[in-house]
Amino acid sequence: MKIFFILLFSGSALFLKSQNKDSIQLRKIYDYYLTQSKTYSNLEFLTTKIGGRLSGSPQADQAVAWAMKAMYAAGADTVIFQPCMVAHWVRGKREKCSISSSKLKLEKELKCIALGSSVATPPGGIKAKVIEVKSFEELEKLGEKEIKGKIVFYNVFFNQAHIRPGTAYGETVKYRGKGASYAAKYGALASIVRSMSSVADDEPHTGNMNYDTTLSKNKIAAIAISYLGADLLSESLKQDKDLTVMVTTDCVTYTNVLSYNVIGQINGSEKKNEYLTAGGHLDSWDNGQGAHDDGAGVVQCMEMLAMFKALGIKPKHSIRAVAFMNEENGLAGGTAYGKFAEENKEKHLAALETDAGGYTPRGFGIDTLKGLYNTVSKWGKLFEPYLIEKITKGGGGADLIGIAKLGVPCMGFEPDNQRYFDIHHTAQDTFDKINKRELNLGAAAIGGLFYLLDQYYQR
Amino acid sequence: MKIFFILLFSGSALFLKSQNKDSIQLRKIYDYYLTQSKTYSNLEFLTTKIGGRLSGSPQADQAVAWAMKAMYAAGADTVIFQPCMVAHWVRGKREKCSISSSKLKLEKELKCIALGSSVATPPGGIKAKVIEVKSFEELEKLGEKEIKGKIVFYNVFFNQAHIRPGTAYGETVKYRGKGASYAAKYGALASIVRSMSSVADDEPHTGNMNYDTTLSKNKIAAIAISYLGADLLSESLKQDKDLTVMVTTDCVTYTNVLSYNVIGQINGSEKKNEYLTAGGHLDSWDNGQGAHDDGAGVVQCMEMLAMFKALGIKPKHSIRAVAFMNEENGLAGGTAYGKFAEENKEKHLAALETDAGGYTPRGFGIDTLKGLYNTVSKWGKLFEPYLIEKITKGGGGADLIGIAKLGVPCMGFEPDNQRYFDIHHTAQDTFDKINKRELNLGAAAIGGLFYLLDQYYQR
Repeated sequence: MKIFFILLFSGSALFLKSQNKDSIQLRKIYDYYLTQSKTYSNLEFLTTKIGGRLSGSPQADQAVAWAMKAMYAAGADTVIFQPCMVAHWVRGKREKCSISSSKLKLEKELKCIALGSSVATPPGGIKAKVIEVKSFEELEKLGEKEIKGKIVFYNVFFNQAHIRPGTAYGETVKYRGKGASYAAKYGALASIVRSMSSVADDEPHTGNMNYDTTLSKNKIAAIAISYLGADLLSESLKQDKDLTVMVTTDCVTYTNVLSYNVIGQINGSEKKNEYLTAGGHLDSWDNGQGAHDDGAGVVQCMEMLAMFKALGIKPKHSIRAVAFMNEENGLAGGTAYGKFAEENKEKHLAALETDAGGYTPRGFGIDTLKGLYNTVSKWGKLFEPYLIEKITKGGGGADLIGIAKLGVPCMGFEPDNQRYFDIHHTAQDTFDKINKRELNLGAAAIGGLFYLLDQYYQR
Repeated sequence: MKIFFILLFSGSALFLKSQNKDSIQLRKIYDYYLTQSKTYSNLEFLTTKIGGRLSGSPQADQAVAWAMKAMYAAGADTVIFQPCMVAHWVRGKREKCSISSSKLKLEKELKCIALGSSVATPPGGIKAKVIEVKSFEELEKLGEKEIKGKIVFYNVFFNQAHIRPGTAYGETVKYRGKGASYAAKYGALASIVRSMSSVADDEPHTGNMNYDTTLSKNKIAAIAISYLGADLLSESLKQDKDLTVMVTTDCVTYTNVLSYNVIGQINGSEKKNEYLTAGGHLDSWDNGQGAHDDGAGVVQCMEMLAMFKALGIKPKHSIRAVAFMNEENGLAGGTAYGKFAEENKEKHLAALETDAGGYTPRGFGIDTLKGLYNTVSKWGKLFEPYLIEKITKGGGGADLIGIAKLGVPCMGFEPDNQRYFDIHHTAQDTFDKINKRELNLGAAAIGGLFYLLDQYYQR
């Protein structure tokens, strides 16, 4: 019994000692981010000097070149360009949507935006009656008889009652994603979707759509209208179901082009060939500046390299900050990251994505695979002083699609993103929406987590 | 043993049943706030139609009249005006601060704002050399020899390394509060304080100061300059310690005037003479719109009345939403609330203040007095789905000063206020800084807590 207690005691003492050492180190890490980091100024450059940077655009190329320099400036030992072929879709000059009703004496243009991957309408636009639906089931019931020759209007509300706005987004994004092909299946001429917006304003939200050829081989134009525009259209339809809407888009999809993931790496001092990855996506929609989505994630991960250097910490494993390309419309970067890892037989310990906005951190979602959750959840106490309370099971993210397939345990950074879907994929996702403290607290949480993973996570 | 287990089992079953009933009710409460409440539109009216409303101002009177109507509209059975005599300080037309240095060829006006309760300078202003200090200790060491005839400049940084920005505010606000009297003690002519700001911008932050006659009977003018202005002044002083600064203020302090707390009450169905109070303060600084500070708190508490009515819940105890007057410069309302409670021998079960901004809720600080913390902390599980994670010991707030003295256990609403001290007491505390979801989530957390308190809290 005595020996047992002595062992227990010395075990606890060791545990306490390491927790104490770690809490001191975490405090230094937070000090760095909150008082010295370049997270905010890096994001300012990316968003205001380069701006929106959709895959295949000149701005995306500029962002790749900038990311390389910024990774080196942050202290990367090496910067790797990882090639991937990305979609090259261009919005074009015109995107118009107007209601016309002689009965209501209404001629009104609605703010609209073409969805990513949409085709163009004929040059003169498409003018047709509109049929409003609230679900695919309703669409199916109406069938070709009611839909053929019309424009389908998916007027599905973003349910504000959800505590996590991402839940409401998850419920409605399918109408953006495959609404056009579903409508085309029944002979519709174009598709309009109510923006996935958590605020009642006049900003249309873009985002990618896909033509699902199993539903229809016919590709029809797909646009989004704003929350208020959708309200107006719906109200007008109640009073005049024969009103017409004119939709015009000029979009062009070119051949895929070469682009890159940009990987900034600090070489591990003990296990150089074992990797810990933290990434966000470098591409963004073209209508805003891609500040919260996901310039924030890119600069947060990049700053991790600078933190290790500034504090003189030599990580045991190789630490990678990854600026993924093409998250928004193709996931070519995320797919390539997995492919290269597989081909080169890289050993990836774990990978994190931050792509939910640069807001105050609340926690992390952590894979239960390979003991990762069990390890990380023990650090809850260490993170408590930093108001990180939710270390939950599950996690990952779109950019980790390739690496997750290889069985690498994944993690997701979870900020307080109540404001995210106000500006998500709109012209309002701009640098002025970023709060410096919130951005840096998020970066610090990620940096702290990676410090601990490097120290303690074993597989 | 059998009986013990049966009792244990039936006890747990009852507990589970009530938790289940409560979780259903909480969900209804959140649904109400997130989809039907008038919190946001009420705040829009208060902030944009009435605007800044310092005690004693016509706007404060308008706010009192509005609060009465809004409390009735929210469903109050009765609205009580609770009189209190409040400070009547008026900023006046001019507040100027300019640097002059022939050595640096510098003539520059700095954005500045008089501190609440400050006296006016002589009409021509005060022009003098400046002595910069970082603490009262430094001031004391310099003494009359160095300070007499000069303007004291408290250049104390808001420490960004703190995880809770309120900690940094707490460290620096003393220079705003009694810096002038401390400086006057050594013969200073005026006092300038660096704004308690968490952002590097050009907005000066006001806030109250007090003349401490135990330090000096001489009342000197007190102003704040912005973060960037303070940087400029400090840099300039390094290059020319003989530069002069001119400070001009026109402030007037009139005789105290009559104003009111506005109390909206739903009468308890079982214990009408036992009260549960939730309050924010109706007055605000004059330079902004008092949106986060504390229009948000007022409308959150007010909406609780509407929630009880809308959901058909008849509270057992009397529920009070209180719009306190004069939190910013005197606490006359909070003091009066306690005085009336004492005089009328009111039985107050518990009281909450919300005055930390209308941001995403994180938790509550709860008094350990009279079993309140023990009761509330058991509800942690119920609040988990609503991302309320921190139910901690301690709590209360400035407006509860009177009621706390009577031994009433107090609570404080704790939002994620990383952005608060960017705009606190500035012209930027305006309605456009409010996010509707965040505001309503806070209101819902308070409403949910009060539903549970009414059901279960006993003393």
